[in-house]
Amino acid sequence: MDYGDYFLPLADQKQQKQLFEQLLDRCFDFYSGKERDNKFLIYKSADELKDLVQEDLPEEGLPLENLLDVLSKRVGRYSIAQFDPEYLAFPDSGNSIPAMWADIYTKFLNQNMIAFSRSAPIATFIEIQLIEWLRQLIGYEYKSLDQVQSLSEVSGMITTGGHMSNHIAIMSALNHAFPEIKTKGLSSLGFQPAVILSGAISHYSFSSAMHHLGIGQDGLLIADSTSDYTTNLASVEELLKNPPEGKKPFMVVGVAGNSRTTSIDDLGALAKLCRKYGIWFHTDACHGGVLLFSSKYRKMLAGIEESDSVSLDPHKGLFSPYPLSFVMFKQRDTLTQFTRYEKEVRNGGSWDLGYITPFYGSRGFESLKLWLSIKALGLKGLEKAIDDRQTLAYQTSDLITKSGYFAVFNEMSFYRMVFVYYPAKIKDLVSQQHAITPEQKEAVKELIDHYTHLINEELYTSGELCLDEFKLHDLGNFSGLDTKDRFVVMSLTIGNPKQHIEVIEQALQKLFKLCEHYSKEMQDKVEDVLFGNAKHEVKTTNLYGPAGWQ
Amino acid sequence: MDYGDYFLPLADQKQQKQLFEQLLDRCFDFYSGKERDNKFLIYKSADELKDLVQEDLPEEGLPLENLLDVLSKRVGRYSIAQFDPEYLAFPDSGNSIPAMWADIYTKFLNQNMIAFSRSAPIATFIEIQLIEWLRQLIGYEYKSLDQVQSLSEVSGMITTGGHMSNHIAIMSALNHAFPEIKTKGLSSLGFQPAVILSGAISHYSFSSAMHHLGIGQDGLLIADSTSDYTTNLASVEELLKNPPEGKKPFMVVGVAGNSRTTSIDDLGALAKLCRKYGIWFHTDACHGGVLLFSSKYRKMLAGIEESDSVSLDPHKGLFSPYPLSFVMFKQRDTLTQFTRYEKEVRNGGSWDLGYITPFYGSRGFESLKLWLSIKALGLKGLEKAIDDRQTLAYQTSDLITKSGYFAVFNEMSFYRMVFVYYPAKIKDLVSQQHAITPEQKEAVKELIDHYTHLINEELYTSGELCLDEFKLHDLGNFSGLDTKDRFVVMSLTIGNPKQHIEVIEQALQKLFKLCEHYSKEMQDKVEDVLFGNAKHEVKTTNLYGPAGWQ
Repeated sequence: MDYGDYFLPLADQKQQKQLFEQLLDRCFDFYSGKERDNKFLIYKSADELKDLVQEDLPEEGLPLENLLDVLSKRVGRYSIAQFDPEYLAFPDSGNSIPAMWADIYTKFLNQNMIAFSRSAPIATFIEIQLIEWLRQLIGYEYKSLDQVQSLSEVSGMITTGGHMSNHIAIMSALNHAFPEIKTKGLSSLGFQPAVILSGAISHYSFSSAMHHLGIGQDGLLIADSTSDYTTNLASVEELLKNPPEGKKPFMVVGVAGNSRTTSIDDLGALAKLCRKYGIWFHTDACHGGVLLFSSKYRKMLAGIEESDSVSLDPHKGLFSPYPLSFVMFKQRDTLTQFTRYEKEVRNGGSWDLGYITPFYGSRGFESLKLWLSIKALGLKGLEKAIDDRQTLAYQTSDLITKSGYFAVFNEMSFYRMVFVYYPAKIKDLVSQQHAITPEQKEAVKELIDHYTHLINEELYTSGELCLDEFKLHDLGNFSGLDTKDRFVVMSLTIGNPKQHIEVIEQALQKLFKLCEHYSKEMQDKVEDVLFGNAKHEVKTTNLYGPAGWQ
Repeated sequence: MDYGDYFLPLADQKQQKQLFEQLLDRCFDFYSGKERDNKFLIYKSADELKDLVQEDLPEEGLPLENLLDVLSKRVGRYSIAQFDPEYLAFPDSGNSIPAMWADIYTKFLNQNMIAFSRSAPIATFIEIQLIEWLRQLIGYEYKSLDQVQSLSEVSGMITTGGHMSNHIAIMSALNHAFPEIKTKGLSSLGFQPAVILSGAISHYSFSSAMHHLGIGQDGLLIADSTSDYTTNLASVEELLKNPPEGKKPFMVVGVAGNSRTTSIDDLGALAKLCRKYGIWFHTDACHGGVLLFSSKYRKMLAGIEESDSVSLDPHKGLFSPYPLSFVMFKQRDTLTQFTRYEKEVRNGGSWDLGYITPFYGSRGFESLKLWLSIKALGLKGLEKAIDDRQTLAYQTSDLITKSGYFAVFNEMSFYRMVFVYYPAKIKDLVSQQHAITPEQKEAVKELIDHYTHLINEELYTSGELCLDEFKLHDLGNFSGLDTKDRFVVMSLTIGNPKQHIEVIEQALQKLFKLCEHYSKEMQDKVEDVLFGNAKHEVKTTNLYGPAGWQ
């Protein structure tokens, strides 16, 4: 073989172009649904997929043409299509043409964002310009690019995801509060630093970060949640006032669109509380950050501009392919605490972003896609896409609520709602039993879990409708079953700006049909629980989806 | 505007395809050199680039067609081409067609690697298969995919870069040694954990990690280096035997191709030493890992299979676009210590990679590019590309050495060499002065720094030849100037498998011409230092490139 045929540039430029055009055909065969039998997924079990993939380390290679089949017949055929009209599990549609173009173009550019000279000349300033735009959107003080005089003023950074953005926010707050950690470490402190957040709604990345940062998960102080899935302010204040002995709070986390119900905290009130106690306030706006683009809905985020740090995840609600996340800081020189060359970073002697981006040395030009998306759609275009999606989310929420098949756990906040299969007829029957015992309630709850999962899994494996599934506390007691255990819930998310209400209505008919199908069977079992001698269902040990990870 | 025109799929499939084909034209205009006047870079100063980028947050958008010009006339035109034949600064050529295809295809797939169900069905197993292949290449115990029974057996993970891979390796070793950190944190320890490495050659990510992990940079114990830029074994053993009071070593770092000279430590001897003292041994093979693919050269890595962890960076020497790095672990269940659901991770109850990948929740399918590259080229193709590059590196090294213009700091190890401008004639003159004072030596050293930078910068800004530039200790006293200060060095790297010796010879003529041009001027100044009353040159405060960051 001549390995030269596998590297750009090829001597024959026409052939080179044709090869990449053939690749595009395969890309569109996946997008159109042709390669996946027009389903959002051709479902296979884990063992079946292992068999499809299992292969010894190959000695011999394959001609480029054969790779096209590998990609489409092997990889694409069994991949999931998050942009499919019948995919309603996560908002990550990733179908913005400007964002995809930027990502494709940047594979050819292959700039290395670690450094300015020899690595990423203009890309460095495009990224800094974008960070100023994001500052403006949040409501932070911002500058025109020519007024940014040094790296120490660059006060936001791109990361690979919300997990990392939240991690860097905690790390920044921690080092801001206890700068001696840099050289002497946490073991030099005589106490455990602590973070306050609401456990039932916070993302799992926070407790992970407590572990990974060496603070220890015992340093997480858990505040209560409200019945509408937001942070309980009084509970936060109580922890600020009277932290457990040996623990010193340095940060409070507010949630702007939790990953379960997308409910939004009262950010202004949390910010005020944090100022009162002199504590760093972080807002996890990985989901809710999209509302910054809407003059109509951004008031749901009122107070976000008072946060010391904010996480944003455009690869979730902003139509961009992975990876794309940001952590932003109110104070200009926050990232400067992570450089070893403070003087040069402060005096403008260097534009090497690698000096101020912890965890990232050599890295690609992922920021190009958000810069280009904003230029392509403009604020007006993005606003309209987000406002229309919001309308669609409310309409969809009505369809679910009015169907009568579900106990709905949250009012649609901005694009996600959560519900369990609990037909009104059955719920009425249960609620009429005044002498119902806790054990009977528990048995009904288990039936709800069972059928919620059964229906959702049947839809998923058929490739006909994809809803999310995870575990969630019924904080508002919407089931009326007074349980502290988490339910297995279905969740519906409107992410794709190409969605239409007619398509959603049609897709939901498949859900409603199954709901109707199982209603008699479930009612019989519930009646057995209430009036007969039914045994408890076996509890499932399935872990379910990431939205419910704790 | 109709924002629907900006999202896939478009109603007109032919138009949709044409749009992406137009993008490809722009991609190839960058690649061919057309868009950048056939230079590796059209150089602009930082201020000029700021002016090109500076723009208010746009209210109105742009038609898709206009974006093509934005990409090529604005972004591409002022970007650097690392794959250009005259770019010899870093090995990151990124020009593998299979890798680029995979990255483009995966932008359409947009799988979310956090979870198996609803997110990344077949992609999950392709990533696990790839990790087994990498285990085999390192020389770790490996399995066929159908024998991998649970997530706890998946003992390697993809990351965004070597910085992160090294960070996760330290974090793994730290938690392995002191598991109480998970809940109680480092502040519960009565001592400072410590990492031993050779300071002059180790990557800056290690001291960063000490800070970011909360261990503290004082926990870094610095061993000596040898005159050929490897870790001094006796010095490591001394630190293991007699660590400073209050510090407890838990890890030794070996370097398989340091980022400055690509010199490779005696990994087998370091591993043996670590076993003797019961200490975790990590090998940073971000550069040297490419040699695993060569049966001829992999013996330079002998002992790597004894490492407890290994970092690999295919986006450096293995022709892949960013981002692509891996951290691998000898012991199967190393990553299991980071999950909160140990039972399910051990019993095969879940295939959600997000349970065992610290720092990464939602993320894209970046691993596809290495899986596809290995399938495309096979071991034989990759081996031939690497072996040929090695031959080319030796040939290039000869050209530099024999030119007589340089003091060369290292023998070509595998693809990188370092040298300073110090013509033999001048060096001879200086070495003949037996009564030379330390001040005179220092002045000569500063002249070397001055002209090395001057020549390199002139080449860089002309867009004619790109060598790297950073600061480095002259460990072998190759300059003969007995200085402990770091020199400003030029560095040449052979990364691109499309390189040919004729092209390199031609490119180096530009370097040699400038070297000749400045030799008289420099000699005059050196003579002033030796025989006249020359004042010291002003020391530069420039920080130079990332390879020299400490």
